[in-house]
Amino acid sequence: MTFTILLDYIGTFAFAISGIRMASAKKFDWFGAYVVGLVTAVGGGTIRDLLLGLTPFWMLQPSYLIITALALLTVIVFGKHLIKINTTMFIFDAIGLGLFTVVGYEKSLAVGFPFWVNVIMGTLTGAAGGILRDTLINEVPLIFRKDIYAIACIIGGMIFFGCQFANLHNATSEVITASSVILIRILAVRCHISLPTLKGEENDDENEPKLPIT
Amino acid sequence: MTFTILLDYIGTFAFAISGIRMASAKKFDWFGAYVVGLVTAVGGGTIRDLLLGLTPFWMLQPSYLIITALALLTVIVFGKHLIKINTTMFIFDAIGLGLFTVVGYEKSLAVGFPFWVNVIMGTLTGAAGGILRDTLINEVPLIFRKDIYAIACIIGGMIFFGCQFANLHNATSEVITASSVILIRILAVRCHISLPTLKGEENDDENEPKLPIT
Amino acid sequence: MTFTILLDYIGTFAFAISGIRMASAKKFDWFGAYVVGLVTAVGGGTIRDLLLGLTPFWMLQPSYLIITALALLTVIVFGKHLIKINTTMFIFDAIGLGLFTVVGYEKSLAVGFPFWVNVIMGTLTGAAGGILRDTLINEVPLIFRKDIYAIACIIGGMIFFGCQFANLHNATSEVITASSVILIRILAVRCHISLPTLKGEENDDENEPKLPIT
Repeated sequence: MTFTILLDYIGTFAFAISGIRMASAKKFDWFGAYVVGLVTAVGGGTIRDLLLGLTPFWMLQPSYLIITALALLTVIVFGKHLIKINTTMFIFDAIGLGLFTVVGYEKSLAVGFPFWVNVIMGTLTGAAGGILRDTLINEVPLIFRKDIYAIACIIGGMIFFGCQFANLHNATSEVITASSVILIRILAVRCHISLPTLKGEENDDENEPKLPIT
Repeated sequence: MTFTILLDYIGTFAFAISGIRMASAKKFDWFGAYVVGLVTAVGGGTIRDLLLGLTPFWMLQPSYLIITALALLTVIVFGKHLIKINTTMFIFDAIGLGLFTVVGYEKSLAVGFPFWVNVIMGTLTGAAGGILRDTLINEVPLIFRKDIYAIACIIGGMIFFGCQFANLHNATSEVITASSVILIRILAVRCHISLPTLKGEENDDENEPKLPIT
Repeated sequence: MTFTILLDYIGTFAFAISGIRMASAKKFDWFGAYVVGLVTAVGGGTIRDLLLGLTPFWMLQPSYLIITALALLTVIVFGKHLIKINTTMFIFDAIGLGLFTVVGYEKSLAVGFPFWVNVIMGTLTGAAGGILRDTLINEVPLIFRKDIYAIACIIGGMIFFGCQFANLHNATSEVITASSVILIRILAVRCHISLPTLKGEENDDENEPKLPIT
């Protein structure tokens, strides 16, 4: 249990760093950077909890706010040097993705939703924070265009369901699911695996599918 | 009842297609397009359910996720050819708008809110999905600048209230309201009716009304 | 009590005007301007109420919708002349900020949350409407880059907590807190006090901290 919490905090830290560094690229002040970091770290879980009708998890204990503050401090103090440990940050981020997916799945399961809702909640927990981050810094969400990210969560959710179906012990299911998500994410980036892209239509400077009836 | 569900599904399909086609214009991958399509189709109803304190409707049965998947498949397979049936899609979209407005109004009414909250909930159900879609693809929401869209929902909500006030049978009220919204939407586009635009102020490169006290 | 309500309405009006004027700079139609004005005025409180599990305050009585309509009417009628009373609008906005912070803090306190959640809820009530406004008009949120705004709410929240800790009468705490927020906000703008900015990293055209493992 303590180990899970440690990994959860590491994931939170990595997500917060990702948000703060993007805010930094946009020349945000410390407050703006903190907010973007926090939203990246807890935004997905917050949407999940609101959809499930629960009190958002970060309102129940202040750890997540403190971890985000540490992440901000880290970026302020170490700044440039963080680029050199990008691979480390990427591994942390992948670990966070795996852990967050499991947490989201289980919270949804506990409320009593069917497996497909649990898969969505796991995916939201892992991936929605990044979408909110990109919306706040006024960019098109990265995960809509670039390699496998949320898909790793979706596959992980299905694996979790399979483990439960096979009556595996809960801790075993968690480890298998989180490991799968982390592995898929790392393999996807290392092997440049990505989803097909939709081709833009020719006449879309109109940018509006609802044409007038003429 | 079955007929209403069919129309609801058609509306969902049309809304999802609209989101997926805009995602396509931005070169999103299949996952990104699916998310944008889903948010366009169920986003308005989700905001409504959260405001009303209800479990979001699409978490109670998987139809809406499946319909969005069908919409994605349709765009992948037929792509370019969809442009040729723009008028058909526009009619579907208008039908969705009318139906969604009625559904939103009734859900809010069932919780016991006064008529003006019901009108807002009907309008949110019909129009908020498109606003979320435009935020996700990083565009200024279309309905804030172009012809009558949400206004059709607002007028529809008032008509629904009028029907109830006149003690009309519920099914009758629904048909009248949905038809009105559809008709207003189609007429507005056909006759190029739109709301007046606010003129931008001259000194607004500042883009900030709060000037320092000097 | 009546005086507090009056100040709350004045704050709502000022916030709505700020949203409508920014929508005007983007050439929105009347409906779009109304929505942006409303979101600016009630958005922060709505997020707060959703996080606290309460029914959003503006759904319980129509005053806030009516005040936003008056704000829209004011911009339509007086338009250009509003620029001349920018200082007045700034004072109104600062008053709104102070009042909204107190309201948010107290609502959260009444639900039984610890002081740090109350501080966040006060800050969200005062500052989140402006972030939603900037997201809707597709701009980077102003308060992430420019002078002291949300920080005034945070300091105010801590002062409120200090007042309670010192067993001050509730009305006294409210007056002290709101006055502090207003004063900090005005002093920050007058003396050009702002937070340090994060320096953008050199290699961030990549705009993505998760680099591939090579």
